[in-house]
Amino acid sequence: MKMRKERDTLGELEVPDDRLYGAQTVRSVMNFPIGGKEERMPYPVIVAFGILKKAAAKVNIEYGLDKKLAEAIMQACDDVISGKLYREGHFPLVIWQTGSGTQSNMNTNEVVANRAIQILGGKLGSKSPVHPNDHVNKSQSSNDTYPTAMHIAVAMELRDRLMPGLVALRDTLKAKSKEFEKIIKIGRTHLMDAVPLTLGQEFSGYAAQLTFGIERVCSILPRLHYLALGGTAVGTGLNTRIGFAEKCAAEIAAITGIPFETAPNKFEALACHDTMVEVSGALNTVACSLMKIANDIRFLASGPRCGLGELMLPENEPGSSIMPAAQVMGNHVACTIGGSNGHFELNVFKPMIVANVLRSIRLIGDACQAFNKNCAVGIKANKERIDKIMHESLMLVTALNPHIGYDKAALIAKTAHKEGGNLKDTAVKLGILTPEQFDQWVKPEEMLGPK
Amino acid sequence: MKMRKERDTLGELEVPDDRLYGAQTVRSVMNFPIGGKEERMPYPVIVAFGILKKAAAKVNIEYGLDKKLAEAIMQACDDVISGKLYREGHFPLVIWQTGSGTQSNMNTNEVVANRAIQILGGKLGSKSPVHPNDHVNKSQSSNDTYPTAMHIAVAMELRDRLMPGLVALRDTLKAKSKEFEKIIKIGRTHLMDAVPLTLGQEFSGYAAQLTFGIERVCSILPRLHYLALGGTAVGTGLNTRIGFAEKCAAEIAAITGIPFETAPNKFEALACHDTMVEVSGALNTVACSLMKIANDIRFLASGPRCGLGELMLPENEPGSSIMPAAQVMGNHVACTIGGSNGHFELNVFKPMIVANVLRSIRLIGDACQAFNKNCAVGIKANKERIDKIMHESLMLVTALNPHIGYDKAALIAKTAHKEGGNLKDTAVKLGILTPEQFDQWVKPEEMLGPK
Amino acid sequence: MKMRKERDTLGELEVPDDRLYGAQTVRSVMNFPIGGKEERMPYPVIVAFGILKKAAAKVNIEYGLDKKLAEAIMQACDDVISGKLYREGHFPLVIWQTGSGTQSNMNTNEVVANRAIQILGGKLGSKSPVHPNDHVNKSQSSNDTYPTAMHIAVAMELRDRLMPGLVALRDTLKAKSKEFEKIIKIGRTHLMDAVPLTLGQEFSGYAAQLTFGIERVCSILPRLHYLALGGTAVGTGLNTRIGFAEKCAAEIAAITGIPFETAPNKFEALACHDTMVEVSGALNTVACSLMKIANDIRFLASGPRCGLGELMLPENEPGSSIMPAAQVMGNHVACTIGGSNGHFELNVFKPMIVANVLRSIRLIGDACQAFNKNCAVGIKANKERIDKIMHESLMLVTALNPHIGYDKAALIAKTAHKEGGNLKDTAVKLGILTPEQFDQWVKPEEMLGPK
Amino acid sequence: MKMRKERDTLGELEVPDDRLYGAQTVRSVMNFPIGGKEERMPYPVIVAFGILKKAAAKVNIEYGLDKKLAEAIMQACDDVISGKLYREGHFPLVIWQTGSGTQSNMNTNEVVANRAIQILGGKLGSKSPVHPNDHVNKSQSSNDTYPTAMHIAVAMELRDRLMPGLVALRDTLKAKSKEFEKIIKIGRTHLMDAVPLTLGQEFSGYAAQLTFGIERVCSILPRLHYLALGGTAVGTGLNTRIGFAEKCAAEIAAITGIPFETAPNKFEALACHDTMVEVSGALNTVACSLMKIANDIRFLASGPRCGLGELMLPENEPGSSIMPAAQVMGNHVACTIGGSNGHFELNVFKPMIVANVLRSIRLIGDACQAFNKNCAVGIKANKERIDKIMHESLMLVTALNPHIGYDKAALIAKTAHKEGGNLKDTAVKLGILTPEQFDQWVKPEEMLGPK
Repeated sequence: MKMRKERDTLGELEVPDDRLYGAQTVRSVMNFPIGGKEERMPYPVIVAFGILKKAAAKVNIEYGLDKKLAEAIMQACDDVISGKLYREGHFPLVIWQTGSGTQSNMNTNEVVANRAIQILGGKLGSKSPVHPNDHVNKSQSSNDTYPTAMHIAVAMELRDRLMPGLVALRDTLKAKSKEFEKIIKIGRTHLMDAVPLTLGQEFSGYAAQLTFGIERVCSILPRLHYLALGGTAVGTGLNTRIGFAEKCAAEIAAITGIPFETAPNKFEALACHDTMVEVSGALNTVACSLMKIANDIRFLASGPRCGLGELMLPENEPGSSIMPAAQVMGNHVACTIGGSNGHFELNVFKPMIVANVLRSIRLIGDACQAFNKNCAVGIKANKERIDKIMHESLMLVTALNPHIGYDKAALIAKTAHKEGGNLKDTAVKLGILTPEQFDQWVKPEEMLGPK
Repeated sequence: MKMRKERDTLGELEVPDDRLYGAQTVRSVMNFPIGGKEERMPYPVIVAFGILKKAAAKVNIEYGLDKKLAEAIMQACDDVISGKLYREGHFPLVIWQTGSGTQSNMNTNEVVANRAIQILGGKLGSKSPVHPNDHVNKSQSSNDTYPTAMHIAVAMELRDRLMPGLVALRDTLKAKSKEFEKIIKIGRTHLMDAVPLTLGQEFSGYAAQLTFGIERVCSILPRLHYLALGGTAVGTGLNTRIGFAEKCAAEIAAITGIPFETAPNKFEALACHDTMVEVSGALNTVACSLMKIANDIRFLASGPRCGLGELMLPENEPGSSIMPAAQVMGNHVACTIGGSNGHFELNVFKPMIVANVLRSIRLIGDACQAFNKNCAVGIKANKERIDKIMHESLMLVTALNPHIGYDKAALIAKTAHKEGGNLKDTAVKLGILTPEQFDQWVKPEEMLGPK
Repeated sequence: MKMRKERDTLGELEVPDDRLYGAQTVRSVMNFPIGGKEERMPYPVIVAFGILKKAAAKVNIEYGLDKKLAEAIMQACDDVISGKLYREGHFPLVIWQTGSGTQSNMNTNEVVANRAIQILGGKLGSKSPVHPNDHVNKSQSSNDTYPTAMHIAVAMELRDRLMPGLVALRDTLKAKSKEFEKIIKIGRTHLMDAVPLTLGQEFSGYAAQLTFGIERVCSILPRLHYLALGGTAVGTGLNTRIGFAEKCAAEIAAITGIPFETAPNKFEALACHDTMVEVSGALNTVACSLMKIANDIRFLASGPRCGLGELMLPENEPGSSIMPAAQVMGNHVACTIGGSNGHFELNVFKPMIVANVLRSIRLIGDACQAFNKNCAVGIKANKERIDKIMHESLMLVTALNPHIGYDKAALIAKTAHKEGGNLKDTAVKLGILTPEQFDQWVKPEEMLGPK
Repeated sequence: MKMRKERDTLGELEVPDDRLYGAQTVRSVMNFPIGGKEERMPYPVIVAFGILKKAAAKVNIEYGLDKKLAEAIMQACDDVISGKLYREGHFPLVIWQTGSGTQSNMNTNEVVANRAIQILGGKLGSKSPVHPNDHVNKSQSSNDTYPTAMHIAVAMELRDRLMPGLVALRDTLKAKSKEFEKIIKIGRTHLMDAVPLTLGQEFSGYAAQLTFGIERVCSILPRLHYLALGGTAVGTGLNTRIGFAEKCAAEIAAITGIPFETAPNKFEALACHDTMVEVSGALNTVACSLMKIANDIRFLASGPRCGLGELMLPENEPGSSIMPAAQVMGNHVACTIGGSNGHFELNVFKPMIVANVLRSIRLIGDACQAFNKNCAVGIKANKERIDKIMHESLMLVTALNPHIGYDKAALIAKTAHKEGGNLKDTAVKLGILTPEQFDQWVKPEEMLGPK
């Protein structure tokens, strides 16, 4: 492997010559051998860095950055945004670096600068004509770029990965609710037989959970759309120019199509990540919904002979989608702990926090899609069994109360329970009702709503 | 102790004759000796039950409940709402009862019925002329009343206990931000000396965190204002009348002044408590904010001689308000686990969930008030020390970069670091600057924002 | 209410004259109005303080404490240990005080001193002849007494409350395992029908979980038995005498019958509470076991008609014991967060940490006892139903593989599944087996172990 | 890419011809597109599968497996154990498969069978002469192999990755404790100045925390060494032979050098993962220790000018090792939730649980090594500053109490605090002491232990 020599403030280092990163990236690789490849900085963060560096370069033209250099930077950023440079291995760093994400900011600066140098025909590692700090990082600091990348990455992934999954599954559950609207089944509370409802009503609850989940995520967006960029090292905006923050946010909004704005308080935006904890909290709630829905469906489909057997799931591979929900709940605690441990002007759990939020988004989004496609769309009701066990239930006796009084109704139920018979036979045998009366009065279809 | 005999479906029991509750309450006390008095059903839940029973009684007049009975019930409910009956010991049950909160619903029915019987001159325990089930619980089920009480209790406590605490502390921090707006201090990132900001800017970040916290809680209210009442046992509304749910919600809104509405999907409202998990998530985020703020203030006030010493706190009792934040984070996990474990038509972690949410609300509300009154309002800046250590900092050297170049500036800083001198003396000694030049160029007050 | 005047370092205060506590306790009540009575310092901590103060007084005689005073102190401590003074209201403080538990130490010093003064015929609040600091707190500091009380209280509650509950439930489950050893039932993996096992084998798994749970708790005891006493303010033992720490630990061991020892490193013992986090972790594991067991039993007893119906639970009050397990898991996170946030010479989350551990112990201990008594001992197998659904299962077909080959066996199962028939009838109908062959080869009782 | 056709029970599929896996692995890849490459089944699980398949093949010879086939299987397993086949891409599955880990078991069976077929000169995918199920999986089930692999993988990683990291860091901290034993510094409790201790004493607390951490992990090993193998599908051991379980455990012990035993209760071993939750709990406790230690060192090294400045850290890259601790705490909650959600004969959160435990082990192990090497070994005491601020402290006044009484000592401290002077000057100025007396009586070196 051919190597080139580069320097940073701590000395000289060898850099693989086919890599666009530089000395600071190499140093981070050396200093943080924590976890393996699985622990790499999440891809959406890298894309977000590409977007913000591009926006900053464009805005910096207004504040004196040479237009030719700026355009080369912007073109280089496009190769970050498209994922090309990530796939080619120019972003090797792991999450477990400095807690401000400094090395990933520098990694981006080095890669973008070198790519721009290539575009302009310069020599890799020369920092000329494009300097990673003076040009790519102009008016920026790790302390404001990294949290900006966090918000961009999370907002994009919520839109592009979480929402499609949630909406697809919600829509299927809603369609199933319609499809099953005439199927009357036994209700279960405390796992015990209860009064009936329709399978459609049961599924409408699942759909409602996800609809609320979508609302929950949306209600956070105003705060997520605030960007730290322009705060530089401690939030004051030292070394930036008036208007820089606002213009960058507008540019990022234009690139992404998401209504980002500059954060009204940059000190908050650097020193804490309450909004990340809030997003994580919404994902945690959605995970609760999914665990409830998935557990219900698993139990309703349990069997085929010795379980509840009310639902029939597609016969593809046996698999469960519940594990991701538990992971999301764990990720949330990691975010909470990281979020609560900031000090003074900077929270230094940034990479861990965003990695957990992004992982939760991806797990929920992907799991919803897989669950939807491999399971939910193919759910069928086992009408025969649903009907059979509902009619075996003793809870239908409640329909007799208005006609024969609570005491006689209770006697029928207790006798049936003791003797193992069904309500109708027992009622007739006890001489309380004729079969015709039973059929006339015990109508599950009239037990499904208020009167 | 004089006892009276009462019956429930499982047999006969003795009830203390000075108590308004009945057999079902006594049975719960016997069956659930888990935890002690500290584990009692939270008071706000009892009040909420009083409110919903009163609303139901009023609405039930329209659906045939005898007006005289209804009015006695409503009057009895007023004694629940005022706390009188709670203080007198008529609500002895603990959280650790049936997971649907059935016994607390029955406790309320028994107490309200007996109080109404007293009002109407009847005999305690006679269930006549007011019957706990037929009249007080009319058109209701534990399965819809308990979740309704959860939403009412939490919404009221958010308004009456959390918000006043958060707002008071936020307002103080905002006022301090203004008070400290001219005090320039060293910034700290990674706990290391960084460029300066004002103490007012630092406090503005704290105030912003709490302002966002208030927004976070508010953004959940639309879902919290949905009430399960009218769903009865499984969500269908069996045994209720058309319009009952809507009218009860309107009545509860009128009593509380909170815009409650009937839940659009009652199956969701009984079977899961995602909204409680969501509220808990918002409280968890606020806890992160408070932990950050309290930790910063503790460290900034550390000393008096051997710490940072930038702030001076009131000399009342030494105490910390950080523990409640940790408790809230733990409570949140309990809510999450309870919220994810519902099955079919009913989540049966209801009392535990609401107890944790209410405890978190109270801890945050009370801790904010105590922290505000005993600490925040009395915070003073130790201006002398703030100024002294800022001027000792080497980070001010960055202000020289535009004038003497990065290399000479770095030389000054490195020399000062090595020799222990301050920047000015070192710069002069090195012959790089005159004292006048230093004073002209190194002006912290010009390092506080973009240009 | 008659009041007396007392002073502490911050000034003069009024103390109710029928109370044994003094100015510092009153000040804490005023400064920490956080939560209500439910948030009181747990009773076992108060008892533990009584024990350690008694031990210290006895040891202090050897180091010069007047014997008469020491004996009065020891007698006063007996009234703390017995719970008398707690029940009479002399320990009003809440958890949410200073994070070192200073006020509860002072509360104890004041109460013990005043009680000793009463015994010696002195005047309440006079600090003479027994001074709360000079005599009761001699050679001690809040910083070492509170963590000592934590260890004593937790060790005692583990022995006296957790273990009896765990052992009682484990023994019942073991007895049930024996009782059910001949009952063959269908196994369920992924909730789907699987090969058979005995109900006794299933219950043996539950018993094994609790046996391991007991081992888990025991394996922590060596670290829990280390006491901080003798470390005084920062762990050095300043103001104590050589031998004081060891002798106190021995005395506490003698009083409690638990083999306490002085901590080998007092700096660790004050500055962190890793051992509390460890205990909490063991309780968290036990909670997982209980949730698994309780969920299984709930599901196996679901029905009576529309669920699995394999078990019959006693018909006392419907109730679940699962909520406490979720609470314990939440408490554990609170402990973890508190445990990770110590700084320098002192962790200041002490009262919150111990309150969560003690609450978890009590919830598990009490819930095990209630679950055991109200449910486990009365569990009956619904043999008829267990047998019926096992024989309906298609999984028994695996017993035919060695006799007719996998392909024919699979054909029988598939046909039965499609047509809804049982294995035997289908096999005969398909002409593959005679009824006699089926009965000879398909013997669930031969599928219960290795050969 | 050249493809071959293979079948599983659900139909025919195309398999890349350069891959040793088969149809079931391909189907899992298709059905579970959840997360990306970062979500792959952890490498130690694959190695563990290699070990257990090798052991089973060897034992199976005794029970009739053709020796030639068994030896080919064992040789193939060696290529799994060495990591060769993993690195070559034959184990593509992610964690988010079926919750029993079935597909990873099948992936291993397919790869080992095909590799053995290669060794024996057969045709890939032909299942002859080595069949993935009949030979490689002989007497096994996913339900007992996967939990066996979990225990093997975790035990090996604890030994090979966690322990070396913990021990290395502990040893360094212990050495530093010795190195710093003469350096007297101010203690800090509640972050406030307290009485002195030596820097060596402070570090001894850190070393003690890690020593206890090592003990914590070790105390779990007896339960971790129990292996599920031999339980097959539901724990009964159906389709295995008497002695198989015990012999396999012995073989695995021989291969790994770890004293594994067959689990005394296989029902427990399949149906729950309490021991994984327990391991995770120990790691959670260690994470608390590390967070405390790392935070202390960060704060003690804060500055260089405006912080505490007592320690000097090596000037390599700025970085923190605290993030991994927070991640471990989150992972622990995921394990807890997964561990509490087993049902009946099988817990189906297996891959998620073990992935979290293994990640926590690796993060702690790697972070300890990095922290040790990059930071701990190079920690230096800033003796001058430590001495200076200790002597500025007002807490040394406590040394005067025995000589001049509490009141005069307090007057000196208060005056010094008000006027900003040091104790000695103030004492002399007030005429209370001579400088000589002060020096004679205020000796921090005599405040470091009991007398």
